[in-house]
Formats: sequence, C-alpha cells, structure tokens
Amino acid sequence: MQKNDSEKPLILVTNDDGIHAKGLRELVEVMQFFGDVVVISSEVSMSGKACGITVDQPLRAVPVEKIHGVPTYKCNGTPVDSVKLSFNSLFERTPDYVVSGINHGSNASISVIYSGTMGAAIEGGLHGVPSIGFSLDDYGSEADFSKAKLVVARVFQSVIENGIPAFTCLNVNIPKGKPEGIKVCRQAHGKWMEEFEKRTDPHGREYHWLSGYFQNLDEDTEDTDIFALENNFATVVPVRVDMTCYETMDQIKSWKF
Amino acid sequence: MQKNDSEKPLILVTNDDGIHAKGLRELVEVMQFFGDVVVISSEVSMSGKACGITVDQPLRAVPVEKIHGVPTYKCNGTPVDSVKLSFNSLFERTPDYVVSGINHGSNASISVIYSGTMGAAIEGGLHGVPSIGFSLDDYGSEADFSKAKLVVARVFQSVIENGIPAFTCLNVNIPKGKPEGIKVCRQAHGKWMEEFEKRTDPHGREYHWLSGYFQNLDEDTEDTDIFALENNFATVVPVRVDMTCYETMDQIKSWKF
Repeated sequence: MQKNDSEKPLILVTNDDGIHAKGLRELVEVMQFFGDVVVISSEVSMSGKACGITVDQPLRAVPVEKIHGVPTYKCNGTPVDSVKLSFNSLFERTPDYVVSGINHGSNASISVIYSGTMGAAIEGGLHGVPSIGFSLDDYGSEADFSKAKLVVARVFQSVIENGIPAFTCLNVNIPKGKPEGIKVCRQAHGKWMEEFEKRTDPHGREYHWLSGYFQNLDEDTEDTDIFALENNFATVVPVRVDMTCYETMDQIKSWKF
Repeated sequence: MQKNDSEKPLILVTNDDGIHAKGLRELVEVMQFFGDVVVISSEVSMSGKACGITVDQPLRAVPVEKIHGVPTYKCNGTPVDSVKLSFNSLFERTPDYVVSGINHGSNASISVIYSGTMGAAIEGGLHGVPSIGFSLDDYGSEADFSKAKLVVARVFQSVIENGIPAFTCLNVNIPKGKPEGIKVCRQAHGKWMEEFEKRTDPHGREYHWLSGYFQNLDEDTEDTDIFALENNFATVVPVRVDMTCYETMDQIKSWKF
C-alpha cells in the first residue's frame, strides 16, 4: 500500500549488529525527525552476512519491546530477509525509505561486499526506494554516536530533497570524532591480507579465526572512501546493484568461444 | 607460493550446493583437463549465502574422500570462507584459477547478488586470479550436466587464452538441454515478487517461507542474460567487484550536504 499525501513517509530501520545494538537505537532517534519509523532486526549479530538470504528454514518476525516508542520486530533471518519481509505485508504499508545501521565499524572499500548493513541497503534499493547504509568507524559497543547522528541527519535530509537514482543505494561511512565534512567518493580498491589466525583445539585439531588487516591497493587514493575517512571526512559512495562490468564487455565479446 | 614454469596451473573448485552435489563432481571432471585440481566446499548447502563470511565462529577445513582422485576438503564456512582459506596457506601453493559450481539452478540477473556460487567467484576475483561461477538452469539434484560441461570447457579455454580483467569475474549461466551458443550479456534488471508464503505452525504462530517469482524489469531485454537463457543460449556476464556507481557520482556531488 502507498501512503496518502497526508501521511509522513514510512522509514524502515534495520542493521546487522542486532536489535540490542546501540547504533540501531541512535539511528531510530534520528529518523523520528523525518517520518514514521518501524524497526526490524535480528536478535543476534548478522555481521558479514552480505546480501545473504535464508532459503532452508522458515522466517519468523515477532513484535518485541518498542525502541523509542516505534513498532519493533525481531527476525530470525539475515538483514536482507528483514528488508524483504518488510516489503511483503509485514507492515500495513511498504517502506518509503530503508536505512541500515548505524553499524559498529567501517564498511568502506571492499567491506561493502561482505557487509550485512549494506546488504539491507542494497535490498532496499532493489525494492525501488531510497536506501542508505550508515557505519561509524568505531567497533566498540559503547562507541560515541553523537557526532555521527548529525551526519546521518544531513545525508538523509539531502536524500529526501534529491532522491537516489534507481537501482542505486548509498554507503555512508563516518569517522570517529568530529567529521571535517562530507565527501562523495569511490570505493577504494583493497583486500584483506593474512586473513586467518591458525590455532589448535584441546583435542589437537586445527581451526582458523578470520582476522587479518586491510591493504589499500590504490596508487592514487585521494578520491577514495578510505582516504577521506582517514582524513576525518564522512564518505558517501553510491553503490550500484547492477554488477555488470560494462567496461569489459566488448573485450570479452571478442573472445572466440 | 607461486607455481614453477613446469607446473600445471592449480585450479580451485568450489560451490554452494555442498560437497555431495553432482554439479561439483562434474566441474572437477572438466577442470582435470586443464590443470591440477583441489576442491573445498561445505558439507551442507550454502545456497543464498552471497558474499557472506563467518566472523563469529572458527573455521575448520578437513580432508575428506577425494572427488575424482583430487585433494578434497570440507569446510564449515561459506563459499567465500572456503576461497579465503584456499588463498591463506591451506594448500602448498595458491590457486591460479577459481571456479565455482556447477550450480543447480540459474544465477542470472539479480541472483548474482544473493548467490553463494558467485560469492566464491567474486572472492577469487578479489584475490587477483581469473574466477568463474558456472550455473545450470535446472534445480534438480539429478540434472543432466553433459551439455553444460562442454560450455564450461569452452569458456574456461577462452579464459586461459585471454585472462580476465582485474577485479572482474565471470557469471556463466547455461540453459537446460542443448545450448545454441554462448553470448556475452549484461545482467537483466529484475526483482523477486510476492516473495513469501505465510503459514501457521501447529502452535498457532506465523512463519514465512522465502518463495515468489522473478519479474524482469527491463523493457528492452535482448542484450540481457535472462533473454539469452530463455532463448537457449549460455550467457557470460562480466561482474565487477567495485560496486561504485560512477554514473551518479557527479549528480550526488551536487547535493548540498
């Protein structure tokens, strides 16, 4: 169902850190200035779930204690599952905006590929509504979101005024501390190095913890999200849901299959 | 470690349907014509896991019965976890190619976003080696892969001859039956509709099964993977790991933040 002209927009708030995360509550608080808010998220962390969906077990969405007085559901699925349920009759009307976060930790550069926060935003974009993932470059559960919330409000205000091009969503990352401003950037090329820590369990069997460090592979980085974040700017990267590499199509068409 | 000039290339084979899937065995058989093969996959289905990674539990990779005589590991993580482990000291040398599949079911159009098969291929691309996800448009566990294997061989031969541009991988989908040929395509714009089937459990509580049908949102579809597949062509879509929407950057830069 679509909203009447008299209604405020419906803003869906979700995240991948789970329903008890501080960043989720902070995001709800900001969104209440802009419209009617509903919340759906998992009870447990869904970090690293990317655009994952749940195909092998049924999903449940159950009302729980309201966050800041707004309807709040817990879901046993991924962030994408939560968004899909929200566009499929969970609420009386479908969301007009999807916002995800505020994530505890950066989703700059290649993290966009693995991030459940961004999975939710990409799914919102696929459903044709303006969608944004917000992340704070601070992994602590008690991170200070006070300055990040001002960035969230400014970006969201701009999105209300301008919309977001179809099949695109925004990846917004916010530095610790006071941001110098907001920059539109491209995703830095980078990868994770030495990604595992090998250990041996009490029974003598090997296991591996995902770990490692990020290596920036760009030579000229000034227009990247990583560079801007490191220089205390909040970053806005438009993210395309069409993954086709148009630049290489002609090259591949020349192959003799 | 890198291979000596005298060594055959090392081809990593993985999938998201699990180590017992017929499509995995068929892919190993084709790859044995091209080089030394190693296999790593999950014991259970990882369909829909996208680019998901496992951050909250340790990973194990355990040797199991060889498939077609090649070293074979089971891993308790996602397809991306399996690829990451393979590039991080699981084997004596790092893979020169990553191939994923042959998936039981199409990964055309927007399915690239959700697919574990393509998650593995994207991760291979991030590690800088030519990587391909192969999918057969037939969900049956007893699907006939005989003609699909010829497509796999032809595409892989082309990749050996031409390489794949950096930070790109290939999404290859193969129709049921005899393919008319191989076409390089773009990802069709589409989305899933009526995505859930609502049921009530014996205790009176609602639950939802992910379901629904695909709707093509392209008006002019002749250059899309969906159109070509429907016309019995195998499709090759180059997939970019950089998700930045460069086309909209200038527009968003004009916003007054």
